[in-house]
Amino acid sequence: MLVVMKAQATPEQVQAVCQHIEQLGFRAHSLPGAQRTAIGITGNQGEVDRGNLEFLPGVAEVIRVSKPYKLASRDVKEEYTVIRFPGTDAIIGGGSNVAIVAGPCSIESREQAFAIADQVAASGAQFFRGGAFKPRTSPYAFQGLGLEALQIMAEIRDRTGMRIITEAIDSESLAMVTEYADVIQIGARNMQNYSLLKKAGRTRKPVLVKRGMSATLDEFLMSAEYVMSEGNYQVILCERGVRTFADHTRNTLDLSIVPAVQRLSHLPILVDPSHGTGKRNKVVPLARAAVAVGADGIMVEVHHQPEKALSDGPQSIYPEQFAEMMTELEQIAAVLHRHVPRGIHVEAPAR
Amino acid sequence: MLVVMKAQATPEQVQAVCQHIEQLGFRAHSLPGAQRTAIGITGNQGEVDRGNLEFLPGVAEVIRVSKPYKLASRDVKEEYTVIRFPGTDAIIGGGSNVAIVAGPCSIESREQAFAIADQVAASGAQFFRGGAFKPRTSPYAFQGLGLEALQIMAEIRDRTGMRIITEAIDSESLAMVTEYADVIQIGARNMQNYSLLKKAGRTRKPVLVKRGMSATLDEFLMSAEYVMSEGNYQVILCERGVRTFADHTRNTLDLSIVPAVQRLSHLPILVDPSHGTGKRNKVVPLARAAVAVGADGIMVEVHHQPEKALSDGPQSIYPEQFAEMMTELEQIAAVLHRHVPRGIHVEAPAR
Amino acid sequence: MLVVMKAQATPEQVQAVCQHIEQLGFRAHSLPGAQRTAIGITGNQGEVDRGNLEFLPGVAEVIRVSKPYKLASRDVKEEYTVIRFPGTDAIIGGGSNVAIVAGPCSIESREQAFAIADQVAASGAQFFRGGAFKPRTSPYAFQGLGLEALQIMAEIRDRTGMRIITEAIDSESLAMVTEYADVIQIGARNMQNYSLLKKAGRTRKPVLVKRGMSATLDEFLMSAEYVMSEGNYQVILCERGVRTFADHTRNTLDLSIVPAVQRLSHLPILVDPSHGTGKRNKVVPLARAAVAVGADGIMVEVHHQPEKALSDGPQSIYPEQFAEMMTELEQIAAVLHRHVPRGIHVEAPAR
Amino acid sequence: MLVVMKAQATPEQVQAVCQHIEQLGFRAHSLPGAQRTAIGITGNQGEVDRGNLEFLPGVAEVIRVSKPYKLASRDVKEEYTVIRFPGTDAIIGGGSNVAIVAGPCSIESREQAFAIADQVAASGAQFFRGGAFKPRTSPYAFQGLGLEALQIMAEIRDRTGMRIITEAIDSESLAMVTEYADVIQIGARNMQNYSLLKKAGRTRKPVLVKRGMSATLDEFLMSAEYVMSEGNYQVILCERGVRTFADHTRNTLDLSIVPAVQRLSHLPILVDPSHGTGKRNKVVPLARAAVAVGADGIMVEVHHQPEKALSDGPQSIYPEQFAEMMTELEQIAAVLHRHVPRGIHVEAPAR
Repeated sequence: MLVVMKAQATPEQVQAVCQHIEQLGFRAHSLPGAQRTAIGITGNQGEVDRGNLEFLPGVAEVIRVSKPYKLASRDVKEEYTVIRFPGTDAIIGGGSNVAIVAGPCSIESREQAFAIADQVAASGAQFFRGGAFKPRTSPYAFQGLGLEALQIMAEIRDRTGMRIITEAIDSESLAMVTEYADVIQIGARNMQNYSLLKKAGRTRKPVLVKRGMSATLDEFLMSAEYVMSEGNYQVILCERGVRTFADHTRNTLDLSIVPAVQRLSHLPILVDPSHGTGKRNKVVPLARAAVAVGADGIMVEVHHQPEKALSDGPQSIYPEQFAEMMTELEQIAAVLHRHVPRGIHVEAPAR
Repeated sequence: MLVVMKAQATPEQVQAVCQHIEQLGFRAHSLPGAQRTAIGITGNQGEVDRGNLEFLPGVAEVIRVSKPYKLASRDVKEEYTVIRFPGTDAIIGGGSNVAIVAGPCSIESREQAFAIADQVAASGAQFFRGGAFKPRTSPYAFQGLGLEALQIMAEIRDRTGMRIITEAIDSESLAMVTEYADVIQIGARNMQNYSLLKKAGRTRKPVLVKRGMSATLDEFLMSAEYVMSEGNYQVILCERGVRTFADHTRNTLDLSIVPAVQRLSHLPILVDPSHGTGKRNKVVPLARAAVAVGADGIMVEVHHQPEKALSDGPQSIYPEQFAEMMTELEQIAAVLHRHVPRGIHVEAPAR
Repeated sequence: MLVVMKAQATPEQVQAVCQHIEQLGFRAHSLPGAQRTAIGITGNQGEVDRGNLEFLPGVAEVIRVSKPYKLASRDVKEEYTVIRFPGTDAIIGGGSNVAIVAGPCSIESREQAFAIADQVAASGAQFFRGGAFKPRTSPYAFQGLGLEALQIMAEIRDRTGMRIITEAIDSESLAMVTEYADVIQIGARNMQNYSLLKKAGRTRKPVLVKRGMSATLDEFLMSAEYVMSEGNYQVILCERGVRTFADHTRNTLDLSIVPAVQRLSHLPILVDPSHGTGKRNKVVPLARAAVAVGADGIMVEVHHQPEKALSDGPQSIYPEQFAEMMTELEQIAAVLHRHVPRGIHVEAPAR
Repeated sequence: MLVVMKAQATPEQVQAVCQHIEQLGFRAHSLPGAQRTAIGITGNQGEVDRGNLEFLPGVAEVIRVSKPYKLASRDVKEEYTVIRFPGTDAIIGGGSNVAIVAGPCSIESREQAFAIADQVAASGAQFFRGGAFKPRTSPYAFQGLGLEALQIMAEIRDRTGMRIITEAIDSESLAMVTEYADVIQIGARNMQNYSLLKKAGRTRKPVLVKRGMSATLDEFLMSAEYVMSEGNYQVILCERGVRTFADHTRNTLDLSIVPAVQRLSHLPILVDPSHGTGKRNKVVPLARAAVAVGADGIMVEVHHQPEKALSDGPQSIYPEQFAEMMTELEQIAAVLHRHVPRGIHVEAPAR
């Protein structure tokens, strides 16, 4: 259910409607738009009676939302969601720019992280990715440096200005990631770890949700909805390949989900061609394709010594490839009247 | 790596080898077998040097385990794992019996739970399943009664003797499930929630791991390995259908994984034809097939009023269907020289 | 569209209705049932006007068939289709028996074929399978002995009584297979070779259609419909595994399609656990499961020297395994009140 | 096996080597390259003995080809295959241009075909597609106009210069398509109809092979190999989406196969975003992505009245969308240093 306020409704009227909804035992989500404010109503206990709501001051109309996802739906919010990073000019979403996220699969050491960070920053990346907590298939494989990695990435942010995106895998790591990073990543394996999604929804940091290996579009948007239902509306989606019979790539990158998401939802969607293909020689072509299909950004693994990487070496591109790719992406983005920002401008010292 | 002790090795020798391994910074898993004890060596820091180990007293040989899973592998433990339930005659695994787990998708109320429990107990089920914490695709759907459901199931155990299997979805629910239930279920969506698996591995209750929707056999066994690597060797696997293009069922039940698991691992494997098909009229035929293929048990959703169920009604069978099915399963099990126990014998008052 | 005749309708009335339909430019398919005759109407030119039909003598009612398949649908014919083999007691379909088809993947030589045929006949198989024309992934691989193989199989029929099932891959081979075999097999790769299906529909030999590697249930039934739309109603379906991400078997055997087909269609459905798993050690367990799920028969590859087979050796079982399997299948079939005939009775000399 | 001739080898020496190979009972495929001629050896009867071959005059070396496909492999022919259309400047393949194929799913009438043809020709398409023989899932659906459609397309070629691509579905239609069209299309459902592939290989018209719905990369290349093994080396591949669990598109377009094919094979590969997505609003974004990933061309369905189309209306774009798309594709191709030719130049009157 969605309450659409009149264009001239006052903040007090919005507030009053929210209170009314909460008193009925539901949750009110105030969603300010360019023209008007909408108020999403969610809750576990069945459906609210629209009767009285329609007659509250400032209410234009009350709409039933037919999709299983509500806050993530374009029905509820027509304008593209834009995620901003305070103190910087970086944004994700909104339809006019293409965000570039780059970095190693795992933070392996201070030296490795800095070597890669300096190079991707020099090529213009605004966002740095690096795994601190790694969900590995084997309990005996390298599981990440944890807190140490987060501290290294915080240093990288101070030094380069790049904003940090890193994965949280449970309550404990979520608390640390929330403290150190700029975007909390929920990995593909946890896309339906609803408990973790809800906890991420209670933070006030943007949350990047990667598509699960066999998630349908609806399930993908429902995972975003889990985060949003807790009041955190800064959700970024990320396609990273799905599992199929095809064996020439590690996963099958499903680029058609980009226009599909954009039709149904206002949330930004990135594409990760590194996990999406698992093979270095396919990363750059698919990154180009992702920009051409209209993605809001690219998330890519870069390693200066991929043959020595502790994880995902075969799918990491070299810093030089990344630099060349940036130029291609810029040109393709221009065809779609989009912009690939080069470098991040930090107004004040980060944090 | 696996240390095989001589048949006549003493407990003190086993103990000494374990200590030696731990001193090297690895983890030792003592795995007593019918003929001899084996000691599994796991750890995050590379591979142990076999040199000295071979010359310790009581050691027969040191074997490299080539599979990514070690403790779950038949290389490490040849005999079938049998999960026992103290104070009862119920078992899961071992190759000679077929365990029957039945109950509603969710515990919806005391009345509903008792109505179903009494009927499945009367038909001979030894295990009762019921969701207390439900991982639902929508944040607005019924999420389970939580602690109240666990308390209802504990009452059902006291009354009927049936052992309780229920799902944990995060740290908080895991603590409660561990306290109240006899088997901790990890659902398909959490099969690669490694943090949760490790926490389940630190309990001393049997853990049932359901196959993820697009999990390969190796990944499935690696999830069991995560639990076992923490020292909990009582792991039960459960096939519940995988996601494919086929649209005549909710999932595609992959019965071939039963002989595949049995060849590679000593762990028991159950089959859940309810989630595996999602359609009532296919549950009984596929349950029969599961016993015929050699599964160690069946996990099935039963509801006395499926049309009123808060979740998974369309795939729940009626108690009368369950009763008839038990007879068919008994006859098919006999063809494989297996036994379907009818009713559970509780020696002392449960708990 | 379906015209249901009254129980007491005369053959002349049925005839008259058929003529009326044909005059309208459609095709009439007379489908005699136990209680009454139904007349299926098919055609390329849109829908027939039911108006006049309802008033023709002997017509009980005219029903719109909503499914895309019509002749294959249970709406059109309620009773199970039973395929009979003139001069023998062998049948496929009907719900009371389980047909066993066995033989090598390819006919490699007279010696090989006879060696296998004698053993499977001795174990009670009523049907012999063997490839004469092989659709191989590589143009450089063994493509079958062609006509020579057909002649060898005709000899085997004369000698053992077993009826012959073999694949046709194009017009040329179809003509030969129709002449020599008792059942024309259309392989999985040709399930949507509609031209071939129509040509098979113009023969008067039973046609066995194998499910394509990624065929949905509707597409599978539509392939049967292609054969039937040409007037050949003796169609047998065969599940042989579908292609999924799972890598522990060659294909994923989808046993749930058996009850799904039986609900929607009157046609018999067999299961091929050899192609369905691709691994010898899984063939017998899945064959048991197929009988338990309710399949109308089993099609299995048997080879006396599988390590020397020119094709599909790893999935062929030994004749001794086949013999043991027959006993297990017999016992499981009995649980479903079905019968596994042992040996074929030939009234007169075959052909 | 591959015989590499010396750069200075004479035509007579090439001829002599071919004769030698044929005398051994194999097939010789002379493959002239920019630097040297290679001779591919194929055959059903095992492997040729390299012994004598190495010592024949003009032979540089004899190489074993490890891939299952040989003539389709880059090992055998390093330079990109370029398909030329006599009397015109149109080409497919070669890495420097992007071929555009457009037209309706089916030729429905002369008027419809001309209306669409005129518009796509005006926008610069060099190739016209239109179905004359349609492989439809239902025997009761529109099956195409057959010969009449071929004659209409021949007229379109005469009038617009565009070269004609249309599907053959069996021997009968192949003969007609070969006579009337410029490129013979083998549809996805027939990708493993080896008999048809071999027959297409015996024509001397270029053959476009569409990827089957669940074809692996190897199987896809093997289908090309079937055509080539008969001596027709003018093969064009076409990705058109594969079948997965994803339900937001009709198929999942697998763009990663483009760089995968280009690494292993010299054959051109097109992308069909119409069948690949099945939804009009996704066709243009995915066409852009296909050019960005490096495809050798795009095959797209255009209809001036898609809501009235007899087949595939929902996935056909409007002529105006096609015109705009051409401009975008041109700009993206330029980023890859490729060219989208606009219009076709016909030297002499076509045919």
